[in-house]
Amino acid sequence: LPRALEDRPVVLLNCLPRRGALPAVVPDERAAGRAAAAALLERGHTDRIHLVGEVPPGAYAGGERLAGITAELATAGQQLAGHLACVWWPPDTRTAVHPLVAGSAGGGRPSAVIAINDRVAMGVYQAAAAAGVRIPEELSVVSFDGSDLARWLHPGLTSVALPYREMGMRAIELLVGEPPGARGLHRVPMPLQVRESIAAPES
Amino acid sequence: LPRALEDRPVVLLNCLPRRGALPAVVPDERAAGRAAAAALLERGHTDRIHLVGEVPPGAYAGGERLAGITAELATAGQQLAGHLACVWWPPDTRTAVHPLVAGSAGGGRPSAVIAINDRVAMGVYQAAAAAGVRIPEELSVVSFDGSDLARWLHPGLTSVALPYREMGMRAIELLVGEPPGARGLHRVPMPLQVRESIAAPES
Repeated sequence: LPRALEDRPVVLLNCLPRRGALPAVVPDERAAGRAAAAALLERGHTDRIHLVGEVPPGAYAGGERLAGITAELATAGQQLAGHLACVWWPPDTRTAVHPLVAGSAGGGRPSAVIAINDRVAMGVYQAAAAAGVRIPEELSVVSFDGSDLARWLHPGLTSVALPYREMGMRAIELLVGEPPGARGLHRVPMPLQVRESIAAPES
Repeated sequence: LPRALEDRPVVLLNCLPRRGALPAVVPDERAAGRAAAAALLERGHTDRIHLVGEVPPGAYAGGERLAGITAELATAGQQLAGHLACVWWPPDTRTAVHPLVAGSAGGGRPSAVIAINDRVAMGVYQAAAAAGVRIPEELSVVSFDGSDLARWLHPGLTSVALPYREMGMRAIELLVGEPPGARGLHRVPMPLQVRESIAAPES
């Protein structure tokens, strides 16, 4: 923290304190992971749900998303059928995911993919198109971030959105409020934006 | 211009002066239009090149791009076969362009589309996929902006890129140089980034 701020009220926004207990406003990534998994469970997906996209060690968002997904699946007695840890760019994802969605990777085709973010989901769409696999009829896709891409892809991508506006408002409230903001993590809910990319699995 | 700047050296960056003759650094959009058209002419496209995406009245970039395209086609005795003035979002473009690329709009299928920007090009890709038209074998696509999308789309999108870094450097040179920067427009070249989306037309 810059020295000039040491005697002033400080709230961290979208980042975590290295140590100590400054107030920090972050997205509730764990609940987002639960919401993504729940959206698939509710539609009847069970044991053919794959996670796509690497979760770097120590990365807050990815780790929390994965923990939430795992926890939510466990409530239904399920677990991820696989985790394809490709890098977060559409071209890399497209190449890496193609054997999986085409069913040539062994272990059967997924009924649903959870993409670690919307860029990865774009690559999943491209792989599905190349393999002739229809979304959502033959493959459901749910993702995280709620970026422009989620609205731009076809069919529209269901995504758990980063609540930028709400996080900003929460940080300002903590900063100017009386008394000054409570220390510790303030988790802001991430809304599930449902679009056309998820459906019941093929029977 | 804010009053506090009235007695200081000023350079406008990526915008135009309302009046007067302040130095302004802008992308060379007209040359970009010529480059996009030339990339198609060089590959043998002639009288089935369509422009897609609206060009709002008074918009600098769109107007200059269109002027450059028209001028370059004229050097080859050609002109645009059509201009589909849809709004700049992938879903709108997809819907609007589908009849054109599917050949159901009358007047024959285009051999190439010039998209007014990369977001529009994304919609053109989606329409082509829905119509079963292969890029670049059956349809060449060239675009403007050189955004992340151009690298992310499959096949990679040929796009004339906005030279953000070079524009920033040019503005700083004009601002701190001796003597202070010359008045008037300073146009920075936009590089053609060639990827896999353009090819010779089907014979």
